[in-house]
Amino acid sequence: MHERELLRRIFDVSAGLGPEVVIGPGDDMAMLRPAGWSFSHGGAVGEGCGGGVLLAVDQLIEGVHFSRTTASLSQVGHKAMARCLSDVAAMAGKPRASLVSAVLPPSMSDDDAMELFDAMRATADMFHAPIVGGDLAAHRSQDHPLTCSITVMAEATDRGAVSRFGARAGDLVCVTGSLGGSLDSGRHLDFQPRIGESIMLHAILSSRLHSMIDLSDGLGIDAARMLEGADGLQVRIDAGVLPCHDGVDWKAAVSDGEDYELLCMVAPGDIPTSIVECPLTVIGEIVDRPSLEMPPVVVSSGGVEHDVSSSGWEHQG
Amino acid sequence: MHERELLRRIFDVSAGLGPEVVIGPGDDMAMLRPAGWSFSHGGAVGEGCGGGVLLAVDQLIEGVHFSRTTASLSQVGHKAMARCLSDVAAMAGKPRASLVSAVLPPSMSDDDAMELFDAMRATADMFHAPIVGGDLAAHRSQDHPLTCSITVMAEATDRGAVSRFGARAGDLVCVTGSLGGSLDSGRHLDFQPRIGESIMLHAILSSRLHSMIDLSDGLGIDAARMLEGADGLQVRIDAGVLPCHDGVDWKAAVSDGEDYELLCMVAPGDIPTSIVECPLTVIGEIVDRPSLEMPPVVVSSGGVEHDVSSSGWEHQG
Repeated sequence: MHERELLRRIFDVSAGLGPEVVIGPGDDMAMLRPAGWSFSHGGAVGEGCGGGVLLAVDQLIEGVHFSRTTASLSQVGHKAMARCLSDVAAMAGKPRASLVSAVLPPSMSDDDAMELFDAMRATADMFHAPIVGGDLAAHRSQDHPLTCSITVMAEATDRGAVSRFGARAGDLVCVTGSLGGSLDSGRHLDFQPRIGESIMLHAILSSRLHSMIDLSDGLGIDAARMLEGADGLQVRIDAGVLPCHDGVDWKAAVSDGEDYELLCMVAPGDIPTSIVECPLTVIGEIVDRPSLEMPPVVVSSGGVEHDVSSSGWEHQG
Repeated sequence: MHERELLRRIFDVSAGLGPEVVIGPGDDMAMLRPAGWSFSHGGAVGEGCGGGVLLAVDQLIEGVHFSRTTASLSQVGHKAMARCLSDVAAMAGKPRASLVSAVLPPSMSDDDAMELFDAMRATADMFHAPIVGGDLAAHRSQDHPLTCSITVMAEATDRGAVSRFGARAGDLVCVTGSLGGSLDSGRHLDFQPRIGESIMLHAILSSRLHSMIDLSDGLGIDAARMLEGADGLQVRIDAGVLPCHDGVDWKAAVSDGEDYELLCMVAPGDIPTSIVECPLTVIGEIVDRPSLEMPPVVVSSGGVEHDVSSSGWEHQG
């Protein structure tokens, strides 16, 4: 089984989702505008494409996404919630509520379970996504993996949601923060989703913000995902300007994954160098792909072009 | 670990959910009215308590809720979705969308995974809750249990949602359909959530419909849950009028569970004997509880009163 291929096959069937589903499966979140619902912000009804309900679900599984030998239950709870909130950041949405389901080891004490949930709740509350519902069960065997599934409901702003698709030739490729070394440093356990930065970025760039994704699997592979369905485009990244964490080279920055920074494609023009206190770096551009033989994502380093379209990791092969 | 006690402890902490959370954790679904959102039906903005977003999550776990030796993957998929939709029926809501996450055995073929998801999708589509998002992962070991987590988003009608709490002394206790024998007969695998019946019941009874729940764990235990926080009340059920499936006695009807019929408390007055083609039976009444020593839920049979407040099953002890 290959998770992403299977998800694609599953959702290929559901072509007819109806007019209420503005953004369907395959993006960071789905967006709905149910008939009869309206959304306004500060009293003004959303103009243009504004408003909508954003929904996404994400799992965190012991042995796949974390190990209990290296992560505390507080860190597991935080990461479970923060990963799902990072999807909200990728859409430039405002979190509104969350739900949690979990299957816990049978021997887990109530105090340990509370540590896990208190961490989820603290992160959820910090980003205005209170946990409004949940479901718990115990595994039959101590060997079975602790599993959390988090659903987040968010709201698109008046400017609409930002899809991961929509890059155009000539766009500048930008990334927040710094990349690489997330697993070794433990940053994958304590990162903060870029919710505020994302909304502000969208407010500043407005319709120039063509597409956005949060970097979960690695810059190479995630950039390639943004070009799905756009075979004629290529992402060209300049290794020399890649913002790397200390001790991380460009190859690790491209492939380590779990950065949870934002990668976005922006129409040419002024780009701020930071959003609040978060650096924003132009790392490359979108060009017309010379031919379908050429890779969709390349990094140029020292005059050499490297294919990084598959650089990153998938949680199973 | 005791699942319900732990959930209560977890959610006791989240007292301060804010004014947008109209119904919090502890009911069949949470209800939100996010600031700036409005809901209208047929052009008219909801009157009184109308409108709102309903959210719930529910898990279906191999070895806890089903066995793959007795249930096909189609049945598992249907049951996973139908159980969560039954929560929508319990609130008299209209389903709008669903999300699915699952952890699958590593050896599961793509075709088997498609069978599971196709069944979920068919049930979701039938009740207008298209699957708009999902997350998949593979277990590390063949021994680990197939786990599905389903989130449903629904909408409260203009009449508002029906909470499981709100019974009053003098209310008539009513149930849809027939009870008992769900596991032995296999009905727990192919029941249909009472979505249409519930909305119609609410339309007919309007504000007389004081409270409602879907029967998942058993009539006894589920009726007792409806009186949580209402220590002064008692549910009295007449065994002689209980609608039982063929070959099921009243004791089994009270305790077998997994009926997914609706149990509701209704102010005195006319009660229809059926909703569409679904029988509706008055099975008892709500009275002032004689003393706190008396059980909250009793069945009278042949002049004898039986305490059924704990009759039913919990998925773990």
